[in-house]
Amino acid sequence: MELISAIATPTGKGGVAVIRVSGEGAEALARAMTGRDHFEPNRMYAGEIDCGAFKDYGLTVFFRAPKSFTGEDVVEFHCHGGMEIARGVFAHTVELGARPAERGEFTRRAFLNGKLSLTAVEGMGEMIDAESRAHVRAGYSLYTEKLLSEAKSLQEKIVRCLAGIDADVDYPEEDLTADSRKEIGEALSEVIDGLSALYSRYGTGRKIKTGISAVLCGKPNAGKSSLLNALLGYDRAIVSSEAGTTRDTVEGTIEIEGVLFRLTDTAGLREGQSVAENEGIRRAERAIAEADVIVWLQEEEKIPENIPENTPLIVVGAKSDLVRRENCDVLVSSVTGEGIGELRRLLFTRGVGEVSDGVYLLTERQAAAVREALNAAYRAQDAVSAGSPAELYAQDLSECNAAISKLTGENAAEEVIGEIFSKFCVGK
Amino acid sequence: MELISAIATPTGKGGVAVIRVSGEGAEALARAMTGRDHFEPNRMYAGEIDCGAFKDYGLTVFFRAPKSFTGEDVVEFHCHGGMEIARGVFAHTVELGARPAERGEFTRRAFLNGKLSLTAVEGMGEMIDAESRAHVRAGYSLYTEKLLSEAKSLQEKIVRCLAGIDADVDYPEEDLTADSRKEIGEALSEVIDGLSALYSRYGTGRKIKTGISAVLCGKPNAGKSSLLNALLGYDRAIVSSEAGTTRDTVEGTIEIEGVLFRLTDTAGLREGQSVAENEGIRRAERAIAEADVIVWLQEEEKIPENIPENTPLIVVGAKSDLVRRENCDVLVSSVTGEGIGELRRLLFTRGVGEVSDGVYLLTERQAAAVREALNAAYRAQDAVSAGSPAELYAQDLSECNAAISKLTGENAAEEVIGEIFSKFCVGK
Repeated sequence: MELISAIATPTGKGGVAVIRVSGEGAEALARAMTGRDHFEPNRMYAGEIDCGAFKDYGLTVFFRAPKSFTGEDVVEFHCHGGMEIARGVFAHTVELGARPAERGEFTRRAFLNGKLSLTAVEGMGEMIDAESRAHVRAGYSLYTEKLLSEAKSLQEKIVRCLAGIDADVDYPEEDLTADSRKEIGEALSEVIDGLSALYSRYGTGRKIKTGISAVLCGKPNAGKSSLLNALLGYDRAIVSSEAGTTRDTVEGTIEIEGVLFRLTDTAGLREGQSVAENEGIRRAERAIAEADVIVWLQEEEKIPENIPENTPLIVVGAKSDLVRRENCDVLVSSVTGEGIGELRRLLFTRGVGEVSDGVYLLTERQAAAVREALNAAYRAQDAVSAGSPAELYAQDLSECNAAISKLTGENAAEEVIGEIFSKFCVGK
Repeated sequence: MELISAIATPTGKGGVAVIRVSGEGAEALARAMTGRDHFEPNRMYAGEIDCGAFKDYGLTVFFRAPKSFTGEDVVEFHCHGGMEIARGVFAHTVELGARPAERGEFTRRAFLNGKLSLTAVEGMGEMIDAESRAHVRAGYSLYTEKLLSEAKSLQEKIVRCLAGIDADVDYPEEDLTADSRKEIGEALSEVIDGLSALYSRYGTGRKIKTGISAVLCGKPNAGKSSLLNALLGYDRAIVSSEAGTTRDTVEGTIEIEGVLFRLTDTAGLREGQSVAENEGIRRAERAIAEADVIVWLQEEEKIPENIPENTPLIVVGAKSDLVRRENCDVLVSSVTGEGIGELRRLLFTRGVGEVSDGVYLLTERQAAAVREALNAAYRAQDAVSAGSPAELYAQDLSECNAAISKLTGENAAEEVIGEIFSKFCVGK
């Protein structure tokens, strides 16, 4: 494979920058730039790195194929973390014959060399893009091929059904026995259960990925801004005793059990006193319409009708209120912090429910493949139940199998692969 | 030494992020986070890195004291280059007992453990901050202790003089012999030559560090913007046949022989036709006053008097002009590029003169120490010439020696050291 090179660390100044080179001739390049004859694989060698225009003193490490990230010979130069230094090392690798790598090209080679499946590649991308620990965890479970192994075990069941049908179809004068029909029906149920379980968790996967929008709303002066500040742990929103203080929506993020919550404080809902306040109220209503979970600061029993019926709601009362209302989920004091822990737990359970270490679909591509597999499995199940001829549901089973292959990225089309790698940075 | 930890790579997304930990317990930390029992020093081990809240798969390397950057036990975790991942690995090192490192604390330990002198530390800082290859080179020669070794050889000469005086002062009834006086005089001349040579190159050092400001000026419509674009190699400035097109100063940078040039295109000098044009002309005049080198696009023989006398000037004529003027330094065509190479050479020789691989002072601290040493050496020379008693110039020689020690940072005061490291990033 052609020698490719890129700066693998983020752009900017830092303690260290890494320039990564992969492909045929990587070791010779390392020799040329360090003057060192021999590299024991995986060992970091300290010494001068010659960049033509200047020198740096750093560490050089060689990984021999196939025991490297890409599966090819790889050299990394670890130099001082200045932008001019990193660019100079990179430029010299190009002067010595390497080609600047394209986005995600190192990972693409790892994929082509069978080091990573396409879902593992997607998982790695999710980990890098992650803004929360739960998102890193979900990415890591794709990266470590947990989805691949679930998919493979479903495919084994399907393949066994197909083999059973094949065996019977060898003797076309006989129909499937009741026993094998029953067996296939049972195997199909398991496949459907597995796919449904995966698919039903896509909603949670999406929430893990994008974070959960929690909107704080209520009448003016109900204490929404104080509550936002108490949840965030710092003074994000301006608080005053004047009703209608908040106009623009004010946002801040927190993690609850590793999941990202985007909290939005909104203008109090009333007939506004000014154009600005009315615009604020309009924006509050939009935020409420798009929320994943709504925190309603109650001052009176009635919950306004503009809160969408299907959006989970948490009714919060003020601890300090003289009148204790019956239907509050939690009483909080933004001053003492009482009830804030309980509110966080409620935000988690109503906003996201449960997050396990299991596998979550994280991309629309993955969800589409599972949806397709599930539909084929349901068609097969219907055909089996209806006593249709075996060839008919054999076709559905094959389609189900093919859809699962799409999920794992076997035989994926070049445009699908290209689309995935185009989201990576150069140097990954 | 206490265990310290930091993200060593720049902030942002990338292929790889490095978390560096140094001090007592680094190896135990590596064991705890990887589950691996044994680390052969300098070897990169691929495997799971446990961050408590999540896991990543990456490379871990251990450097055993004193063979490490800091001179202490060091562990580096090389994880996937996501911000949340890097922060999570770092956070877990802190959970396991490391303290977040302060700015430059790793390098400070390298300094305290005698791995780097203070000038080498400054050199490394210059390399990281460098915006040009010449600046990296100049930083590297400090980093590799070239200044230290020049300083040491000057100090040896001074110490030999002092020893000679000491020997004679043992017998106070005798004065110095004419021979030893002559020897001291000669040694002093060498010291003064060495220090002067260093000091005289500080101007160049400063130019290497900050870049050279080259201002393009001339009458309206002389072709300054076209020339700027030709020098930069892309269309930076708007060009039109209308006189007075450029108003704001327009800037771009190029490297000539590795040195950074900041080129400024200015409004043509005339009585302006509008308030905006007059403001442009005022700015042009200020740029001219502050320039390191001026490029005057000539349309008539006369050079205007507002060009400072001491600023190097390059007079450029247009290749296409029918009237060939006598006193042009170079004729250029911005269209064909003819003469641009020659103009670059002139910019270099008049703007900076010569840049060698030798040692350049790069900081005001270094320059101040050399200035102080030089003054003490001159005082000693005067005393020797005037036939003053040996004790008198022995004092001056000691002061010269002490000033050179300041340069190399031996016995440097804590506030001097603190000032230097405060400019470093966390993680260096």
